[in-house]
Amino acid sequence: MRPKIYLYGDSITEESFSDGGWGASLSHHFSRTVIIYFFLSYYLSYCIYIFLSLCFLIMFGSLFFFQVDVVLRGYSGYNTRWALKVAERIFPPVESGGVPPLAVTVFFGANDACLPDRYSAFQHVPLHEYKQNLHSIISFFKKRWPEIVILLITPPPIDEDARLRHPYIENPSGLPERTNEAAGAYAQACISVAKECGCPVVDLWIKMQECPDWKQAYLSDGLHLTQAGNRIVFEEVVKKLKEQGTSVENLPVDLPLIANIDPQDPLKAFQDY
Amino acid sequence: MRPKIYLYGDSITEESFSDGGWGASLSHHFSRTVIIYFFLSYYLSYCIYIFLSLCFLIMFGSLFFFQVDVVLRGYSGYNTRWALKVAERIFPPVESGGVPPLAVTVFFGANDACLPDRYSAFQHVPLHEYKQNLHSIISFFKKRWPEIVILLITPPPIDEDARLRHPYIENPSGLPERTNEAAGAYAQACISVAKECGCPVVDLWIKMQECPDWKQAYLSDGLHLTQAGNRIVFEEVVKKLKEQGTSVENLPVDLPLIANIDPQDPLKAFQDY
Repeated sequence: MRPKIYLYGDSITEESFSDGGWGASLSHHFSRTVIIYFFLSYYLSYCIYIFLSLCFLIMFGSLFFFQVDVVLRGYSGYNTRWALKVAERIFPPVESGGVPPLAVTVFFGANDACLPDRYSAFQHVPLHEYKQNLHSIISFFKKRWPEIVILLITPPPIDEDARLRHPYIENPSGLPERTNEAAGAYAQACISVAKECGCPVVDLWIKMQECPDWKQAYLSDGLHLTQAGNRIVFEEVVKKLKEQGTSVENLPVDLPLIANIDPQDPLKAFQDY
Repeated sequence: MRPKIYLYGDSITEESFSDGGWGASLSHHFSRTVIIYFFLSYYLSYCIYIFLSLCFLIMFGSLFFFQVDVVLRGYSGYNTRWALKVAERIFPPVESGGVPPLAVTVFFGANDACLPDRYSAFQHVPLHEYKQNLHSIISFFKKRWPEIVILLITPPPIDEDARLRHPYIENPSGLPERTNEAAGAYAQACISVAKECGCPVVDLWIKMQECPDWKQAYLSDGLHLTQAGNRIVFEEVVKKLKEQGTSVENLPVDLPLIANIDPQDPLKAFQDY
């Protein structure tokens, strides 16, 4: 059985399998990969085969590429309070085939950070409770699967003008329901929790604002992500997972790659199945 | 637990989570969907709420959108002979939480149809064995999960000139390793098997060639799919699954949608979790 990476979060996770979405990109990244040189190698000399294999081994630490199932658990509009209520149901203890998941991304805060006196107030969660809830979510995963990598992702920055141009409901107040300052406070809280728990974290709030044109480049409606914004999340998640030892180079494939099938005797590769 | 749709096939399946890939599109299609009007409805009058709900019910047959996990099981270079060898391992009988998968796409033939006297001969499977193997794969799934929808997909057409321009290994023969005629014969065989077994089938070989510009529009190297080619597969798969009763409108969501959470008492929606 292939191990899983769960993506747990709100609408920014739920929409992550749209065109160019960070979830789809992760899924593609962790799918089986054709290593053309292996395929070629049967037609090259044995020396070149050995040479290329050694190069590959030195470069990537392994001759094979790794594969996992990326499983989407995104719930539009959810905050950490609601996420905590349903975690037990979403993540049952018994995994198919008994393989525990490798990692989970926990990507909440954009809804918790809704201001308590604006139209999305019912999604608001106070900052101290947001931190407590993140702690509880992390504890839940650590208890469920002690070896799992829990990767926190902070909420993205907010473009307040765009939030006014793209309100989710009629908004006669003329005030945005989310502000960048509030998102920043929740991002900081998320980073604090990550440190306290020894979890890796992607500081999306800071990372995106490193680009002067972040509002147009990364946000489609002042909150949700453009394809370029999705790309940032994808790259940061891959980088952080790699730092934790979860990368395409580190684990074996589940079934023979075409590159490892002997053209003279293809069925030999399948004799154990 | 969410039900699964498995995508079982060769490299055209393995690569289906690339940008604009048909697997990623399916995953997005079957993820939870924000129904904005529900969200709005709390702020509109009760009459409008009822009116819109009824419209939705009439249009889609349900008030909710459905969600499944789309699980990638693509193996680059594989033919039906090898696929059959590993089916038992890939699809274990016990599903996590005991929910049987809803559907599986079986998308093989492009490698079986490699010509037996060209450089990819080791992937070739004779036409009669291809049919037998497809029968065996279908029997395997029917025995494993009697209610599963087994959707066959024929191999795509082949652009032979492009296959010569993009050889996978050095090809001094000047002859393509696959021909469109051979792919067509395997496509026909696939359709015959589908009919014999009462399974739905996507005739990709015919469907793509309906477009005069199919070689450039749908194929990137004469065999694998462009984004437009992926779009065709996605649309055909969604259409066929819908004909079999597996569509986003037919099954309930697993957890409360934001639209169904009362802003006055959000936790009420979670009291059973």
